[in-house]
Amino acid sequence: MASRRASEFELIARYFAPLAKDFAGAGGLKSDNAFLPANARHDLAVKTDMIVSGVHFLAEERPELVAARALRVCLSDLAAGGAAPYAYQLALSLTRGWTERWVAGFARGLAADQRRFGITLCGGDTTGTPGPTTISITAFGKVSRGRGLGRGGARAGDELWVSGTIGDAALGLLAARGELKSSALEKRYRLPQPRTTLGPRLVGIATAAADISDGLLADVGHIAHASGLEVQIERDRVPLSGAARGILSTDPALWRNVLAGGDDYELAFAVPPRKRTALLAASRAAGVRVAHVGGFSRGSRVVLTVSGQPQRIAQSGYVHF
Amino acid sequence: MASRRASEFELIARYFAPLAKDFAGAGGLKSDNAFLPANARHDLAVKTDMIVSGVHFLAEERPELVAARALRVCLSDLAAGGAAPYAYQLALSLTRGWTERWVAGFARGLAADQRRFGITLCGGDTTGTPGPTTISITAFGKVSRGRGLGRGGARAGDELWVSGTIGDAALGLLAARGELKSSALEKRYRLPQPRTTLGPRLVGIATAAADISDGLLADVGHIAHASGLEVQIERDRVPLSGAARGILSTDPALWRNVLAGGDDYELAFAVPPRKRTALLAASRAAGVRVAHVGGFSRGSRVVLTVSGQPQRIAQSGYVHF
Repeated sequence: MASRRASEFELIARYFAPLAKDFAGAGGLKSDNAFLPANARHDLAVKTDMIVSGVHFLAEERPELVAARALRVCLSDLAAGGAAPYAYQLALSLTRGWTERWVAGFARGLAADQRRFGITLCGGDTTGTPGPTTISITAFGKVSRGRGLGRGGARAGDELWVSGTIGDAALGLLAARGELKSSALEKRYRLPQPRTTLGPRLVGIATAAADISDGLLADVGHIAHASGLEVQIERDRVPLSGAARGILSTDPALWRNVLAGGDDYELAFAVPPRKRTALLAASRAAGVRVAHVGGFSRGSRVVLTVSGQPQRIAQSGYVHF
Repeated sequence: MASRRASEFELIARYFAPLAKDFAGAGGLKSDNAFLPANARHDLAVKTDMIVSGVHFLAEERPELVAARALRVCLSDLAAGGAAPYAYQLALSLTRGWTERWVAGFARGLAADQRRFGITLCGGDTTGTPGPTTISITAFGKVSRGRGLGRGGARAGDELWVSGTIGDAALGLLAARGELKSSALEKRYRLPQPRTTLGPRLVGIATAAADISDGLLADVGHIAHASGLEVQIERDRVPLSGAARGILSTDPALWRNVLAGGDDYELAFAVPPRKRTALLAASRAAGVRVAHVGGFSRGSRVVLTVSGQPQRIAQSGYVHF
């Protein structure tokens, strides 16, 4: 997993970032979103995610949940950009032997999430493939002109905050595999909950943001790297669900999954200390808890501490406790 | 081919058009593009196309040409919408065993077409697949506010025009399969030439437009259907390349391929007779020839005539000469 992601980042840096160098709103492909100037008041945040059956979701997954995952991973990125959901394009490549029943369920899942998140389909493409069903969604969000959030804006002295609880999806993956028991965590893994109510409220408060899709340490590292800073995270401050807390108390080795596992779809963001009151008001208004887990300083490392003691982290994201 | 396309249109009408009904700029998913209001002067035309190795291009095709095809099929749609190329998002799913050499060639192909067509990458996603390499591009174009062209605007009395020459790609496919000999036609099949200089100049002249990707009869039929009209096409007026003319003179049965084969990526459009002078000036300015091949009237059929005599066309697009 870690080596595949590294390879993706290398491909982007080596071959695709040069193709985007003349487009200011692409930010060198280092953030979750591109920003297209729209009108005097708004920019359009744009995010594309592609998911493949058997890779990003289980082949036998219910089509309603596949649709929800495809859309929500994009909505999570828009939220990290501070953008409110607006519209999306859908490219759907159906595997041989697809059934109309599957397509109907997939469309039902999209319809339910369109209502839930206030977004609407605006176009796309449908085709067939001899391979696994593949879905690419390009989602559009609206954000105040020039104020969209990227990974690169954090400053030394900013605090590191995260939304919700961390690690539920990584533990939920183990539950989905039958390696531990928790239907609540398994659901968190199967159905991301993008922070669409919080993200737009972070505009003017956060200086940088990312959604936690690759894992807390990796995504916080992306913010630090894009901002040219060091980031420190205190493990004891990382917010946990009751279910995760129970599991970690009996098997502390699973902290690795919590810190390095992906698919949380929470937000990680940098906030100047003077904005803390505004942040807590935004959190209340959004109905999403936030937790102060660390901070940014001059340097270039990701430093994980446990009760203040620095730990070793391998480049792969592997944590040596 | 015809039955697959029919099935795609059915899926869209049955399951996806309802998801887009509240988005005015989606036009019920009946046109090549969606139009997103951008600013006081411009709308953003948006088009997504997904292509799959072994389905839409040959698995052993040069990666430069795969990149060009992926981008150009979208540019052709933007041109049909009257929009000038602006930016694009790229989702790339690489088959197992992909090589960095392939990715480098693919990126080179994109870079060359970025320069040629004045468009730039602004974001995307890269992932792996156990299936064939799959590419989805969402392209953005700019068009004057509220003036983007769709399929549904033709009026009774409008003339039907097409750009360039028709059928070269369908005959080129036969050449690629070794069924006839013509390197010029094979190149037309392998490398679409989107009419990006003509499309934006049709704004204010054409009342409806589509690019010819499914085949002349099918795409002209889409314009007629979306406009609630009958369309008549005179075969003897369909513009042909010298190579196509030579082949048809020895094997007239190949007219079927010319009229019903796809991948021409020319434009078909409706023009009121009073705009003919403006159209010819636009054609000269664009450096793209146009030909008057028929017209629209009240009704709901696609009528093909040969020297004025109506022919039978099956629902599948098959022509009974």
